[in-house]
Amino acid sequence: MSKELRIGLVGYGFMGRTHSNAYKQVSQFFPSLYRPVLKAVCARDEAKAKAFAENWGYESIETDWRKLVARPDIDAIDICTPNNLHKDIAIAAAAAGKMVLCEKPLSITTAEGEEMCAAIEKAGVANTVWYNYRRVPAVTLAKQLIDEGRLGRIFHYRANFLQDWTINADLPQGGQALWRLDAQAAGSGVTGDLLAHCIDTALWLNGSISDVSAVTETFVKERMHNLTGKVEKVGIDDACTFHCHFKNGSLGLFESTRYARGHKALYTLEINGEHASIRWDLHDLHRLQYFDYADDSIVRGWRSVHVTDGDQPYMKNWWVPGLQIGYEHTFTHQVADFLKSLETGTPCSPTFRESLETQKVCDAVLASAKDRCWVDVA
Amino acid sequence: MSKELRIGLVGYGFMGRTHSNAYKQVSQFFPSLYRPVLKAVCARDEAKAKAFAENWGYESIETDWRKLVARPDIDAIDICTPNNLHKDIAIAAAAAGKMVLCEKPLSITTAEGEEMCAAIEKAGVANTVWYNYRRVPAVTLAKQLIDEGRLGRIFHYRANFLQDWTINADLPQGGQALWRLDAQAAGSGVTGDLLAHCIDTALWLNGSISDVSAVTETFVKERMHNLTGKVEKVGIDDACTFHCHFKNGSLGLFESTRYARGHKALYTLEINGEHASIRWDLHDLHRLQYFDYADDSIVRGWRSVHVTDGDQPYMKNWWVPGLQIGYEHTFTHQVADFLKSLETGTPCSPTFRESLETQKVCDAVLASAKDRCWVDVA
Amino acid sequence: MSKELRIGLVGYGFMGRTHSNAYKQVSQFFPSLYRPVLKAVCARDEAKAKAFAENWGYESIETDWRKLVARPDIDAIDICTPNNLHKDIAIAAAAAGKMVLCEKPLSITTAEGEEMCAAIEKAGVANTVWYNYRRVPAVTLAKQLIDEGRLGRIFHYRANFLQDWTINADLPQGGQALWRLDAQAAGSGVTGDLLAHCIDTALWLNGSISDVSAVTETFVKERMHNLTGKVEKVGIDDACTFHCHFKNGSLGLFESTRYARGHKALYTLEINGEHASIRWDLHDLHRLQYFDYADDSIVRGWRSVHVTDGDQPYMKNWWVPGLQIGYEHTFTHQVADFLKSLETGTPCSPTFRESLETQKVCDAVLASAKDRCWVDVA
Amino acid sequence: MSKELRIGLVGYGFMGRTHSNAYKQVSQFFPSLYRPVLKAVCARDEAKAKAFAENWGYESIETDWRKLVARPDIDAIDICTPNNLHKDIAIAAAAAGKMVLCEKPLSITTAEGEEMCAAIEKAGVANTVWYNYRRVPAVTLAKQLIDEGRLGRIFHYRANFLQDWTINADLPQGGQALWRLDAQAAGSGVTGDLLAHCIDTALWLNGSISDVSAVTETFVKERMHNLTGKVEKVGIDDACTFHCHFKNGSLGLFESTRYARGHKALYTLEINGEHASIRWDLHDLHRLQYFDYADDSIVRGWRSVHVTDGDQPYMKNWWVPGLQIGYEHTFTHQVADFLKSLETGTPCSPTFRESLETQKVCDAVLASAKDRCWVDVA
Repeated sequence: MSKELRIGLVGYGFMGRTHSNAYKQVSQFFPSLYRPVLKAVCARDEAKAKAFAENWGYESIETDWRKLVARPDIDAIDICTPNNLHKDIAIAAAAAGKMVLCEKPLSITTAEGEEMCAAIEKAGVANTVWYNYRRVPAVTLAKQLIDEGRLGRIFHYRANFLQDWTINADLPQGGQALWRLDAQAAGSGVTGDLLAHCIDTALWLNGSISDVSAVTETFVKERMHNLTGKVEKVGIDDACTFHCHFKNGSLGLFESTRYARGHKALYTLEINGEHASIRWDLHDLHRLQYFDYADDSIVRGWRSVHVTDGDQPYMKNWWVPGLQIGYEHTFTHQVADFLKSLETGTPCSPTFRESLETQKVCDAVLASAKDRCWVDVA
Repeated sequence: MSKELRIGLVGYGFMGRTHSNAYKQVSQFFPSLYRPVLKAVCARDEAKAKAFAENWGYESIETDWRKLVARPDIDAIDICTPNNLHKDIAIAAAAAGKMVLCEKPLSITTAEGEEMCAAIEKAGVANTVWYNYRRVPAVTLAKQLIDEGRLGRIFHYRANFLQDWTINADLPQGGQALWRLDAQAAGSGVTGDLLAHCIDTALWLNGSISDVSAVTETFVKERMHNLTGKVEKVGIDDACTFHCHFKNGSLGLFESTRYARGHKALYTLEINGEHASIRWDLHDLHRLQYFDYADDSIVRGWRSVHVTDGDQPYMKNWWVPGLQIGYEHTFTHQVADFLKSLETGTPCSPTFRESLETQKVCDAVLASAKDRCWVDVA
Repeated sequence: MSKELRIGLVGYGFMGRTHSNAYKQVSQFFPSLYRPVLKAVCARDEAKAKAFAENWGYESIETDWRKLVARPDIDAIDICTPNNLHKDIAIAAAAAGKMVLCEKPLSITTAEGEEMCAAIEKAGVANTVWYNYRRVPAVTLAKQLIDEGRLGRIFHYRANFLQDWTINADLPQGGQALWRLDAQAAGSGVTGDLLAHCIDTALWLNGSISDVSAVTETFVKERMHNLTGKVEKVGIDDACTFHCHFKNGSLGLFESTRYARGHKALYTLEINGEHASIRWDLHDLHRLQYFDYADDSIVRGWRSVHVTDGDQPYMKNWWVPGLQIGYEHTFTHQVADFLKSLETGTPCSPTFRESLETQKVCDAVLASAKDRCWVDVA
Repeated sequence: MSKELRIGLVGYGFMGRTHSNAYKQVSQFFPSLYRPVLKAVCARDEAKAKAFAENWGYESIETDWRKLVARPDIDAIDICTPNNLHKDIAIAAAAAGKMVLCEKPLSITTAEGEEMCAAIEKAGVANTVWYNYRRVPAVTLAKQLIDEGRLGRIFHYRANFLQDWTINADLPQGGQALWRLDAQAAGSGVTGDLLAHCIDTALWLNGSISDVSAVTETFVKERMHNLTGKVEKVGIDDACTFHCHFKNGSLGLFESTRYARGHKALYTLEINGEHASIRWDLHDLHRLQYFDYADDSIVRGWRSVHVTDGDQPYMKNWWVPGLQIGYEHTFTHQVADFLKSLETGTPCSPTFRESLETQKVCDAVLASAKDRCWVDVA
């Protein structure tokens, strides 16, 4: 008999939907001792909370996250709010002995994140941060190839995350759908939203970063603010690029923007090693590009690997070779791994502590951009 | 309040899984008056039926499809058995006044299909055949572009479905996982299994086919049979190609095989019109290639359209631009459209009657290959 | 000291330019005992012949090919005329003891080709037919891989040659630039012009063809004729598809058309073998796609081989890795190989005799299309 | 009657070959008042000079470039030596009243370049620097699209030049074939060799750069030196990345390395504008990727433009649509444009003066990398 993992979800936006979908689907595809149960969803707007609960099958609602955190029939709090609420909810949930699953980025600043880690670790509760792209099968496969030593010494790591949805200067900032443009709610712009993904994957695949040199830009300086009703200064970074040294001696190059016309959500990464190289991009997330210098020279070339076979990560649980899965399943995989971690008593990566490293790099990036100098990662 | 659509599923293989997943997911993403309820699953092997029911949440099981069909608490029978059982189940279900959703191909022969259509139409029950690739958003978009007249006069239609999973001569035939290699259970090889998909899409996008000239091949002549335990002659076609005339004056070219090393499940189609052309392939199902001759000549080229925007078919119900869905969602879309058809009282395409046309082409193809001559489509 | 190979060229059109360019360039890149010398160009229009000679550096001109053939200071006759003149010139040149390099297709019919082969062989003169695509380095590499046995048993060969330049119904037929649309001058349409290339490569890579079943179509039935000034019936095939059996047991599928909107000159080929598969297309002629089933399964995929390395065919004579050559160099390679064949006294493939096999397949294809039945290749 | 442009070439390496090939081919494809004549080639090694002259048809040789420069029968000096000789030869040639065509980079330092510009301009001689990638038709087309205003406000410019040929630590430095690894001869590593190309194109397409922040790395610290026979410190940069501000307000991101396993000579560039974006890469140099936001949203996507049509830059002089040209023709185009500039009396871009801007950026990049700070471009 499976055990219930009773979920209390805070937030009902885009991420509320991806997580709920994952909880609903995971048990049919990834057998586990634990089974998520959608116990309650919390949102300040009662009508919206009810509608969300009805659609997804949550048994109940709350309009105050403090009440949700206090409920004895909840095992795990899942935080899907804007970034500026992560800290308080996570600390309260940990204090109440709840497991915590927190949307990325962990926090707005490293200092906040430190508090959160301390709280979580003091409480000793299971925890994870939803850096879902680690669990794209092609990316997980990249990690496996690196761990097997196939790439040898690493020379270069590069990643970018390119979007184009904020080019229109008439787009307002703030409020429910557009809190990512509001520095108050989001903390930063593309750095915390998009580069955080790139950095998380990079630290996982290529180890620690020593120092960074960054530049940021805000192309549209003022936007109507949905909360104040006035045209206000834009406080976020629209674009950010940085280069860095990894501790393994390789060079890193990162870029993110919401002004790259033609790219909807193009997260790409490439790693160049002595023996082999790897490339991946989110727009064709089911493919991994792989170059192996050991191939016969006359037929050596980048291989386009269609990551849908049973011996590739996560794929034996889905369909048959050649049939691709989608974006949403990266969340399903994270839930599957979280459930497995409960069975085995091991952490579910990335933990709060691991995600704090990403926060440190983000802080260094923003400081470097502000001061126009190299900054060591704390 | 939503109304229940109580499903009785026959079969628990690959297609049983895709359909069950679609029933479970559809209501969260496609609001409808109707809501599928997983009432019962039927399989001869009780233990397997139970395990399947438990995994997917079916409320009950049956081991005899005749009992399932007779149950008053079932609204719709979903047929996921090997092809040779489609006819009897569909006719009995119709006679019992049940709606029928039948896996493709409709039948083993046109004659069987005629009986099924007659039964369904006599009963006046809602019905559909799971030619799921019509509901890949990129393919649905292709249909929309053609209906808008963007292609002009059509000159060429070509499609192929290439796999490589039966090259190994040691692979046996028959039995649960391998009934597709057993002529008794499957009726034909790639023609009914893979070309049927290509033909269904072609008839939908490009209209009727007049006549065909085909060739088939069986590369591995004998295989161990799982049911008899003996090496037996292989009765299916391993590969089939045909050219044809469409009634609109265009030429068609089709090919399917399970011996195309390097292709897992590569269904591709291309349509060349006077003004524009379209290409698509299943290995990157979220992309449509589009060439528009009206573009400025100096920047004219094939456009790689990432079909993930809200104004493209089905996509506003999913995530945000740039985030791809997967193979499984084609089934979700078919359920969504079936539910919508119940609301509006219109047929859900392809109906049994529409799918009979595909059967007629398949029969003509097999006859042409056998007699080495052109055959008119009945 | 190098020896002169004194060239007499008949025709000054597109192919006259490609051949002349090759003769001028070959000696700088492919050291040889022989060195082409542009001795004379022949065309009926004296002014055009003079202009061509001046541009390319031909030492003299003729306006009657019979005079050219008779000149003692010419070693080799290169035939770049419309197809209907190939036979007479080739036979006369052979009779005069000249080497003959003939543009493809060899002839309009197999019967004509037989006469040409007989004449050439009786005269014992060096000869070759300009099926230049054999000498795209990627295609030559494909041949090498097949000869090394890397593909194993072959199951499928498919090729197509897609263009879109005759869709406009106002395009006239006949005359200098448009003789390819005039059945009188060209013999056939896409079959002799484009499929002949596909067939030549196929016979080279995959061996003989036993029988064919074809269909042709003429989409635009009448066009203004440049020679008569009247609207006249179009006698050529605008499109042709055929399937066939190769003697090695594999199935072949071929298509050509000038009505595939979006494709300028897309010649593609793919070969599926038991162990490996190969793909190539002319629009990116410097790449070979290669799939090797022996690769580790988790990183198995189609390799995109950039054929620009020194150990790949012809490439050590050009630049450095990564720098692609162009279409014109396929002709340079054929001249280089012809010169080498003179040194070694071996035939330069394809010879007239070898190209006659392509003619036989073309004849079978046209007969099959006309009679709507399978036709054995003579 | 055409006029002779009598060329005196200094150097006989890779670039000596590309230039000679261009001089030999240009007149057949690009009609001009001027016609290059290969008058003399100069190299210190007499035997090598003779062999080169014989192969390419140079009428004479010199072993001292000062003698070449002094010859009255030479109109133009073409400098193909290692970088450290550019200055002296160019200044002497200008002083002798010769036109000067100089391989890139113009010079080792900006200071050197200033002297060269002063000399050239004082002499008033025609001059150009061989930044050949401007004349890839796809890149020239990009320039045209930008000049037509199709992109609107520019947000991002990114370029990289990735190679992998020096990963092997056993590769020596210095001497004829490997002078690019010798700081003495080359001045810098990838910055002057590869980034100089990226910068030249960027300045041409996107205007001036204000300031840069760079990092360089030397992965292999010591290599055997071919000239001294000893293991010596490597003085060049193996890799370099920099970000920058353009004066038009856009952000730039550049990277170059010879340690990117899998990339032979991958020069890519991308420009993101308000209305449209452009991408290009050298490994498929005949294609331009173009995204136009004005396209109908449902069929909007990156267009893969096969730049082989007569209305695209340079292409009407070559073959027919669909048939690609190669790397070498970028040099042919530069000669064609140089000849045209002589006819019209206008400069042939990039002139020495224009190329000096690239030198300034290179200097700023190297200074920034050395001092780990932002550096203004002089």
